[in-house]
Amino acid sequence: MDQAINLNKKLATFEQHWSPRTVTTFNGHDVMVVKVLGEFNWHSHPDTDDFFLVLKGSIDIELRDRTVSLGPGEIYVVPRGVEHRPVAREEAHLLLIEPTGTPNTGDKATAAKRQVI
Amino acid sequence: MDQAINLNKKLATFEQHWSPRTVTTFNGHDVMVVKVLGEFNWHSHPDTDDFFLVLKGSIDIELRDRTVSLGPGEIYVVPRGVEHRPVAREEAHLLLIEPTGTPNTGDKATAAKRQVI
Repeated sequence: MDQAINLNKKLATFEQHWSPRTVTTFNGHDVMVVKVLGEFNWHSHPDTDDFFLVLKGSIDIELRDRTVSLGPGEIYVVPRGVEHRPVAREEAHLLLIEPTGTPNTGDKATAAKRQVI
Repeated sequence: MDQAINLNKKLATFEQHWSPRTVTTFNGHDVMVVKVLGEFNWHSHPDTDDFFLVLKGSIDIELRDRTVSLGPGEIYVVPRGVEHRPVAREEAHLLLIEPTGTPNTGDKATAAKRQVI
């Protein structure tokens, strides 16, 4: 990596929702930006925590027993194994960090293909 | 972790420069906020990449062969083993991610004590 990575410039290169783009890597993890809108599926990741930072807009991370609401500049880490469902009532932009190869849906069969931009 | 972590609220709880505060953990890493001003020391981390995201202000990450300038919403990952020196000409606020226990100076003798807020 030769220069700074500008997250807004990376986000401006695509429109698709729920399709994370890897902008760099860090200690075996993908650092990703994603645009989200609507309800994702319920899922969990048995082997990794799930890092969310809201860059723009807001999301709810629904857990089975409560909902965590996040706005810009707010972080939540879903512990490994905990079922969750991200929901965005309007388009939101997120920074995600997950080990390289983690399926975003928790299931390789339905996961979005990892794309590097 | 029961609720969202608001990075600006965490940053408002302290003034000290170059003294990272851990706001949560993720896959064995500390997720930290830090206020920086002036020149840090030259150092490297032999066993970990070094993740920087600028939340406010700007910094230069000096490398031995060039300088990477970062503004708000910009990321740079210094690869493990690469010597670097962060410099902030005005106060800047950063999000850092490093494995729990990593000395911020690259040297346990001079490292800032990790503080959780």
